[in-house]
Amino acid sequence: MEQDLVLGIDIGGQSSKLGVVNARGTIIERDTFSSKGLNDLDSYINALTSSINALIEKVGGKERIKGIGVGAPNGNFYKGTIEYAPNLTWGRDKDGNPTTIDFANIVSEKVGVPVILTNDANAAAVGEMTYGAARGMKNFIEITLGTGVGSGIVIGGYVLYGHDGFAGELGHTTAVRGNGRRCGCGRTGCLETYASAIGVARTAREMLESQPDRASSLRDIPLEEITSKDVAIAAANGDELSKDVFKFTGTILGRSLADFVAFSAPEAIVLFGGLCKAGDLILKPTVEALEANVLTLWKNKVKVIFSTLDDSDAAILGAGALAW
Amino acid sequence: MEQDLVLGIDIGGQSSKLGVVNARGTIIERDTFSSKGLNDLDSYINALTSSINALIEKVGGKERIKGIGVGAPNGNFYKGTIEYAPNLTWGRDKDGNPTTIDFANIVSEKVGVPVILTNDANAAAVGEMTYGAARGMKNFIEITLGTGVGSGIVIGGYVLYGHDGFAGELGHTTAVRGNGRRCGCGRTGCLETYASAIGVARTAREMLESQPDRASSLRDIPLEEITSKDVAIAAANGDELSKDVFKFTGTILGRSLADFVAFSAPEAIVLFGGLCKAGDLILKPTVEALEANVLTLWKNKVKVIFSTLDDSDAAILGAGALAW
Repeated sequence: MEQDLVLGIDIGGQSSKLGVVNARGTIIERDTFSSKGLNDLDSYINALTSSINALIEKVGGKERIKGIGVGAPNGNFYKGTIEYAPNLTWGRDKDGNPTTIDFANIVSEKVGVPVILTNDANAAAVGEMTYGAARGMKNFIEITLGTGVGSGIVIGGYVLYGHDGFAGELGHTTAVRGNGRRCGCGRTGCLETYASAIGVARTAREMLESQPDRASSLRDIPLEEITSKDVAIAAANGDELSKDVFKFTGTILGRSLADFVAFSAPEAIVLFGGLCKAGDLILKPTVEALEANVLTLWKNKVKVIFSTLDDSDAAILGAGALAW
Repeated sequence: MEQDLVLGIDIGGQSSKLGVVNARGTIIERDTFSSKGLNDLDSYINALTSSINALIEKVGGKERIKGIGVGAPNGNFYKGTIEYAPNLTWGRDKDGNPTTIDFANIVSEKVGVPVILTNDANAAAVGEMTYGAARGMKNFIEITLGTGVGSGIVIGGYVLYGHDGFAGELGHTTAVRGNGRRCGCGRTGCLETYASAIGVARTAREMLESQPDRASSLRDIPLEEITSKDVAIAAANGDELSKDVFKFTGTILGRSLADFVAFSAPEAIVLFGGLCKAGDLILKPTVEALEANVLTLWKNKVKVIFSTLDDSDAAILGAGALAW
């Protein structure tokens, strides 16, 4: 039987999403399961292989599956490992510390199909190149603006992995020097602390506190409960302070993008993830700051565009595309 | 006859250096000519082809030459062009403005040998990988610390050129935000304004002015005449202020290197050029700042080493290596 399908898996802290993908990029079967209660590796792997096997059965057996592609936090493409991922409750050692899991080998042995693994932002970049806004592009940077900020850098049609498999951590480059925000990674001033959903909420809180006399519909929400979604809704409804939050966010992001361009000279930068829902509110200041800060030779040359992939499918499609 | 030789050319603002290189990386014949008086393209090309032809004759004719490799400022690998190089007096249009020169094609037609061209920092990276400190490495970044700051980024054994051929302008990424130094490129805060020979001299002048009561042997030199070499000599002789100049320079450089590591996850960063003569004075603070600022997963993993290529031969060897 022809190997005309791949299986893409998107592993997150809360849940895992699986999809069987055909050559045209359509997800023909899917499943999702929660990580809740799966607190050790064996339990998780059992739940995962059950889900995989059920899907494979549905589409007519593993003879049709060319391979399994996995997008996982801290996924290492070279080794097929997940290394020290802080948000995976089942990825810890006996003392409860995040550890290294030989993930691709374990799953491949259990299921009997080749498994390839990468991190989630790289999977999104592969999905973008195969089915999304970067089709036909050989050099672009995918920036994922979600809870955190991730990136997948594509060079000559291939994802950049570097010497150790972890290249492309642009969320942890320095956006603000000196008095930058403290980041969960231990550094300060990381792009992630400004251009993520959490960063937007933080900026909103800071602006509300530092401009106490300024009116804003965000003041109806308890300060500590404001989310980036609240800010986006308020901005879309014309709230000036909320618009300024996105302007600030886009300015920080665009300045960083100018430096990224000097590194790899991409044809385009593709923005992906929840923050993109803000549309022009985030895009305009980002492009303005990029153009104001980029070296003359790249002015008006590098496109900044939104992903055309569906948020929840991107990692499945990207991980699946890896397996072709 | 066997094509057992290549010809490497290093084009600078003041002079052009040529060398015939054998497969072991030995320069077996060389020539240099000054650009003085060569104020239009025809004059320059005539001088260059005379030099090339004389060298080729010396080694037994063009049948032995596999190709000519050129390292030039603003050289574009994809197109073989030199584009808007500000320092080449012969590279200007009728109005005296820097213009685009179809360099590789012109030389190839005149000489009858294939010509390949790249920028000088990329040529140095190729030289490093072929004959220098990066032998055997597939992923590293060459940083050239000369009058300016350039870079050649090697990924999977190939120089990174990006979408348009100009990737790797790390000297023009932002090292200092907000109140950074004005750069010749039109931006502010560029790494080049701090980590170049000119940047070191500028830092020395600033420190001498801002700390008027501090003793320093640099005070024997008129302020505007202080060069990075003066600072290096003073530091080597124990002058504390001069040591602090290098400490400051290395700290700025190391912080930027931490961000570069997050981009391409290199095995090593190779420092090349005049500033390396300062040895540990520049290396130690650079490594300290890198380690203090790099993401945890790369701590104590990325080597920072000096080039082992001779300064004046690196571009010839690198350009030549391109031609193999």
